[in-house]
Amino acid sequence: MSKPKVVLAYSGGLDTSVAIKWLEEQGYAVVACCLDVGEGKDLEFVQQKALKVGAVQSYVIDAKEEFANEYALMALQAHALYEGKYPLVSALSRPLIAKKLVEVAEKEGAVAVAHGCTGKGNDQVRFEVSINALNPDLQVLAPVREWSWSREEEIEYAKKHGIPIPIDLDSPFSIDQNLWGRSNECGVLEDPWAAPPEEAYELTASLETTPDVPDIIEIGFEEGVPVTLNGKHYSLAQLILELNILAGKHGVGRIDHVENRLVGIKSREVYECPGAMTLIKAHKELEDLTLVKEVAHFKPIIEKKISEIIYEGLWFSPLKDALSAFLKETQKYVTGIVRVKLFKGHAIIEGRKSPYSLYDEKLATYTSDDAFDHSAAVGFIKLWGLPTKVQSIVNNKKVTV
Amino acid sequence: MSKPKVVLAYSGGLDTSVAIKWLEEQGYAVVACCLDVGEGKDLEFVQQKALKVGAVQSYVIDAKEEFANEYALMALQAHALYEGKYPLVSALSRPLIAKKLVEVAEKEGAVAVAHGCTGKGNDQVRFEVSINALNPDLQVLAPVREWSWSREEEIEYAKKHGIPIPIDLDSPFSIDQNLWGRSNECGVLEDPWAAPPEEAYELTASLETTPDVPDIIEIGFEEGVPVTLNGKHYSLAQLILELNILAGKHGVGRIDHVENRLVGIKSREVYECPGAMTLIKAHKELEDLTLVKEVAHFKPIIEKKISEIIYEGLWFSPLKDALSAFLKETQKYVTGIVRVKLFKGHAIIEGRKSPYSLYDEKLATYTSDDAFDHSAAVGFIKLWGLPTKVQSIVNNKKVTV
Amino acid sequence: MSKPKVVLAYSGGLDTSVAIKWLEEQGYAVVACCLDVGEGKDLEFVQQKALKVGAVQSYVIDAKEEFANEYALMALQAHALYEGKYPLVSALSRPLIAKKLVEVAEKEGAVAVAHGCTGKGNDQVRFEVSINALNPDLQVLAPVREWSWSREEEIEYAKKHGIPIPIDLDSPFSIDQNLWGRSNECGVLEDPWAAPPEEAYELTASLETTPDVPDIIEIGFEEGVPVTLNGKHYSLAQLILELNILAGKHGVGRIDHVENRLVGIKSREVYECPGAMTLIKAHKELEDLTLVKEVAHFKPIIEKKISEIIYEGLWFSPLKDALSAFLKETQKYVTGIVRVKLFKGHAIIEGRKSPYSLYDEKLATYTSDDAFDHSAAVGFIKLWGLPTKVQSIVNNKKVTV
Amino acid sequence: MSKPKVVLAYSGGLDTSVAIKWLEEQGYAVVACCLDVGEGKDLEFVQQKALKVGAVQSYVIDAKEEFANEYALMALQAHALYEGKYPLVSALSRPLIAKKLVEVAEKEGAVAVAHGCTGKGNDQVRFEVSINALNPDLQVLAPVREWSWSREEEIEYAKKHGIPIPIDLDSPFSIDQNLWGRSNECGVLEDPWAAPPEEAYELTASLETTPDVPDIIEIGFEEGVPVTLNGKHYSLAQLILELNILAGKHGVGRIDHVENRLVGIKSREVYECPGAMTLIKAHKELEDLTLVKEVAHFKPIIEKKISEIIYEGLWFSPLKDALSAFLKETQKYVTGIVRVKLFKGHAIIEGRKSPYSLYDEKLATYTSDDAFDHSAAVGFIKLWGLPTKVQSIVNNKKVTV
Repeated sequence: MSKPKVVLAYSGGLDTSVAIKWLEEQGYAVVACCLDVGEGKDLEFVQQKALKVGAVQSYVIDAKEEFANEYALMALQAHALYEGKYPLVSALSRPLIAKKLVEVAEKEGAVAVAHGCTGKGNDQVRFEVSINALNPDLQVLAPVREWSWSREEEIEYAKKHGIPIPIDLDSPFSIDQNLWGRSNECGVLEDPWAAPPEEAYELTASLETTPDVPDIIEIGFEEGVPVTLNGKHYSLAQLILELNILAGKHGVGRIDHVENRLVGIKSREVYECPGAMTLIKAHKELEDLTLVKEVAHFKPIIEKKISEIIYEGLWFSPLKDALSAFLKETQKYVTGIVRVKLFKGHAIIEGRKSPYSLYDEKLATYTSDDAFDHSAAVGFIKLWGLPTKVQSIVNNKKVTV
Repeated sequence: MSKPKVVLAYSGGLDTSVAIKWLEEQGYAVVACCLDVGEGKDLEFVQQKALKVGAVQSYVIDAKEEFANEYALMALQAHALYEGKYPLVSALSRPLIAKKLVEVAEKEGAVAVAHGCTGKGNDQVRFEVSINALNPDLQVLAPVREWSWSREEEIEYAKKHGIPIPIDLDSPFSIDQNLWGRSNECGVLEDPWAAPPEEAYELTASLETTPDVPDIIEIGFEEGVPVTLNGKHYSLAQLILELNILAGKHGVGRIDHVENRLVGIKSREVYECPGAMTLIKAHKELEDLTLVKEVAHFKPIIEKKISEIIYEGLWFSPLKDALSAFLKETQKYVTGIVRVKLFKGHAIIEGRKSPYSLYDEKLATYTSDDAFDHSAAVGFIKLWGLPTKVQSIVNNKKVTV
Repeated sequence: MSKPKVVLAYSGGLDTSVAIKWLEEQGYAVVACCLDVGEGKDLEFVQQKALKVGAVQSYVIDAKEEFANEYALMALQAHALYEGKYPLVSALSRPLIAKKLVEVAEKEGAVAVAHGCTGKGNDQVRFEVSINALNPDLQVLAPVREWSWSREEEIEYAKKHGIPIPIDLDSPFSIDQNLWGRSNECGVLEDPWAAPPEEAYELTASLETTPDVPDIIEIGFEEGVPVTLNGKHYSLAQLILELNILAGKHGVGRIDHVENRLVGIKSREVYECPGAMTLIKAHKELEDLTLVKEVAHFKPIIEKKISEIIYEGLWFSPLKDALSAFLKETQKYVTGIVRVKLFKGHAIIEGRKSPYSLYDEKLATYTSDDAFDHSAAVGFIKLWGLPTKVQSIVNNKKVTV
Repeated sequence: MSKPKVVLAYSGGLDTSVAIKWLEEQGYAVVACCLDVGEGKDLEFVQQKALKVGAVQSYVIDAKEEFANEYALMALQAHALYEGKYPLVSALSRPLIAKKLVEVAEKEGAVAVAHGCTGKGNDQVRFEVSINALNPDLQVLAPVREWSWSREEEIEYAKKHGIPIPIDLDSPFSIDQNLWGRSNECGVLEDPWAAPPEEAYELTASLETTPDVPDIIEIGFEEGVPVTLNGKHYSLAQLILELNILAGKHGVGRIDHVENRLVGIKSREVYECPGAMTLIKAHKELEDLTLVKEVAHFKPIIEKKISEIIYEGLWFSPLKDALSAFLKETQKYVTGIVRVKLFKGHAIIEGRKSPYSLYDEKLATYTSDDAFDHSAAVGFIKLWGLPTKVQSIVNNKKVTV
């Protein structure tokens, strides 16, 4: 009888390489699965390495466009920043990876899927809740969390089983990357009083080394989707990757965040999101021009909830679908062009225009073209302030009597 | 019988100078009242000008510390940014000016107070609702809104009555300033596709001319109040003014905003808030370190409402008092030091520390010091994801059957 | 040249009858338009009366099903109760009436539409904002608000122009009714300490006279829409009207509300909504069974906003469309049957069942069938309470040191 | 050396009686602690039983007034209803019990506290999070969750150790009660389609047996606190207990709820809260009269959060303190009298009056006393509807072109 199969989210690093062997020892045939969500790795190498270490099969899946259009786009349109700061880099890719693992597992007839997360991060929650939502019959394994070895014990195990030790193993950092950005934690970053060292960054130039001449770019949006860069059409993934280079060169998008993890602790993280931060800023400015006031004032409530449920691993939940329906409806008129000056770490919005602009110079002007009915204000103020006035009359009288 | 008195919010500009004469013609004795909220004007000159133009009395009141401690501080602790962008510069000073007008009116036995706002801005609402809340028996006059002259008619009237015409009359901009920042609207700014010209700015250096060497400063907070700068104690007003210079030199705090006015139109405004933006950023970072997760996640709801009611002129409303009570309670442990790098338009938080820091390296670390119970995560995830899982089991079954 | 046309929302009462004549005197040809939204009037009589008084044309439009399906249904699914109490009876019909007025105006080539509201109610806002949203070119006239006659002056004018005076003119109440309910204000109701007299009610029996035997009914929902009553299919309008009778007989749905009007004052209103309140209660119970926790806990935020914008006249606003998209997405699984006991003013939900029920007896039970993993709770509680525990350790230590 | 002490929350029932013996076997000296929060038990008997079963000491603490004033009052002023239905009966008493356990533990020098909850309810979370917040050094034991015996195994253990078996052991229900109400789950209630049987209720009469004559009562509030009943002063605990009898007699306050537990499952609960529901209703009506509109419209956001954190066991969290500060500030003017008709399961508010009433008949009336400025509405509507109108002009044009 053949061994039961497990599909493992494989990154090519030490943890998941050791996991292949460890899962094998538990009696599984391991199917490795590596996703390309824009992290720019040598995926051929990763694919081969899995087989070398012992996987019975090794998938590499290019999911960049799916990631851009189905995941990053929602974060963009929701201006999703967890706790006002973190653009949800890893939180966005986890549900997509989970989805692909489940698809491969169903195709391969696997009984389980496995991930390489430890027990104190957010990603374990995102993986497991997503997998349960997509196929509650699949078992979920978390070898790294289960074996709970020290670093030394893990290396010893790897050596014993002929698993190659990566040369950057003593890197002080723990990195995750996709086209929406790059996250970095651990090591010296664990002291929130210390500034992050330059080597913690990779996608963005330091302010000290950015060019002294700005780049002025124009981003074109159609119904909330960025579709052109300087007039040229791009697929969404390509546009984001292009912007990562352009804005990264000018040092845009460094974030240093002491955040509240879902599992109850605070951690200090460093993010780089040059493309994401430029797009979020540009998109918000276009909304400022095209969204009617009531929508502009309520959408942030939706945005906050979207940010939270994505961070908290609830991507595949009915609440996300409902929030998404709201969001989509608001994007109908978010069409236009935003001019951005990339310079010294800034993505400065210099101009915005739209065929659906609700900014009306005739109403806004103080010149003789003025079309605003100034006398209407008198009645407006009277009724706007009426509750306050009545309560002042009533309660001030009472207090003094 | 003596003429009834009116207390006029007097700025020294053309509009309110003409208003003195106009109110006089309506039968009032005009008491001019000019507040120093940190705009850095020559107030002696303003005081004398009022008398010269026809005021029977002319007050100048230094309200800088009151403004800082009773108004700007709430905005700081609430990270109050209307529509995520505007730090409420003028919106904060209007209620204080209204309060002083009412105090003077009560002292002088005046029957009315007057302001120089037109009929399409937000400030008329803020003045009138505040005055009604503080003393509903006082009449409110708005001469500029009432006379509705063209610029030419107003100048002609001024000339006829010997009112001096300011030399900067043909400035294309309409400015308001206090220690929390400076706002600018009109003229070329009315085209949202055009970048604001350099002459629109005054408190901040352009990025192109900022120093190539950063300033690193340390801001000390006690229970949410900034009290020291580089270890030296300042009153709050002095600390903000000092920061305006320091951060302004590095180009920090320029904001370009297409905003939704209370009176129903969109307008394009340019703000400069070097001190305010630096303080808000530093304060938020200290909260990230010291606020427990549940507070950190709910406080933004309160912050959003505070921003809105301040913008909307409801400062003297019972809702502000209740929101303020919430806010104060959250500041108990917001004590510590934030290190800020001022450089190229950025106020970069490089470090933060607090005796009440909830960041626990023992819990957050990935080293062998780890005190986090990794196995607890298994149970947590199981219950956290249970609703999603049950709904997946139930509804996926139903859909396929 | 022919007179310009105005389309008047005509009710058959004194105000709008006088308005026909008054508008004629202003130079308009008046097209009367009366909607049937379930108020149970003799509409043929109303139609004829308009012509008799001077309208050049008189429309009667049966809009009951459109009202039920496009307006009342959203209120039902949103459990829309303004300030937690008022089911938005009139607030729901105003936008539909406005829509029909605009349609008739466009068909008839009219230049204006007119309504009979006074200047202190909410309905004038709802009418005018709706009409402006649907066709901003149409002028809106409000004759009753404009002429500002006393009751005596109006009656004199009516007599002079041969306009029949209704026999119930000295009724102390001001009534509005449609299939979602009946509202009543004025007269003795203006004293909030006085209990409403029995004659204020019409759709509901007093508790003292309700039957001593309950009716037990079953309401069937499909994707959030009530479709059956005791197993029999009804159109939505018919189902609501049927329930008004059934539940009204048992005294269900009396509401006595001191509410905050949009125009800044408090008013005291009495409502009767037997069908609406029964349906809202039943629908909520089915949601309790079928909505996943995260949706159940966020939907009230949406519901509150929906209630407010409907009350505030913003039906035809992009925000309503976005909120509606959220709402629809949540109704997918709200299918099932609710058993209701109508008795002594109560609509008691006795039972609810659904093919999509997320209530799982195996998980919920305390019997030996228990499928819940009790040990998972230990890990859950540890992480759930971790932020509170860390802050207690940190801050209690600090306080005592 | 003496045994380490554990303080056990003792109810007198089988579970906690067995827990005394079981904890003893684990090597502890057990201090039993029973709180009187208004459940009306024979506490002398409970106290003695603990000693008989093996406790080294047995506390009975009358905490009724503390519970009323420090816990129930907040729920009342927040109109706290979890998921719009459940008045948080047990959720309110758990933190108080935890507090008393910790106090006794500190006084007795105990190393641990223990509770009798199983692993699938909410109460274990409330106990443990509260205890950790109050004294993170104390260990928390949950014997019933730990031993995980079947009912039969537990009874066998009890018999073996001479622990008396309660005579109502085969009651199908699981009850908890305090002065804020009574909760009941399990047994036949686990089928949400079945109506709760009459024997599930104890505090309230069935509608079929309620008196045919109403009681009309007057409740007096001072700054949000109910202080008189029919003009007579009561302590808060006595007032609530009195109302439980009065309103219970008329069948007020039965609630049947399918709710989402914190631990991820839905459960069906039956509650009886005659006093609580009467007070919440009366208090809300007095707020409707005395709260200014802006407060009335924002307070529900605070109320919802308060309900959630109480349900979720976060009573002793800084967020509760901040929410509570908001709440207190809103109660300043909630002073007055509410007249309530108790009849056939209803607490009908017939009248409300207050020296701080913001309801102004002069403004609200349609009679000739009318003080409302009708013409102000014209300006108000113009600006209120302006965003909608502009967007209609812009976007309708675009759509058709």
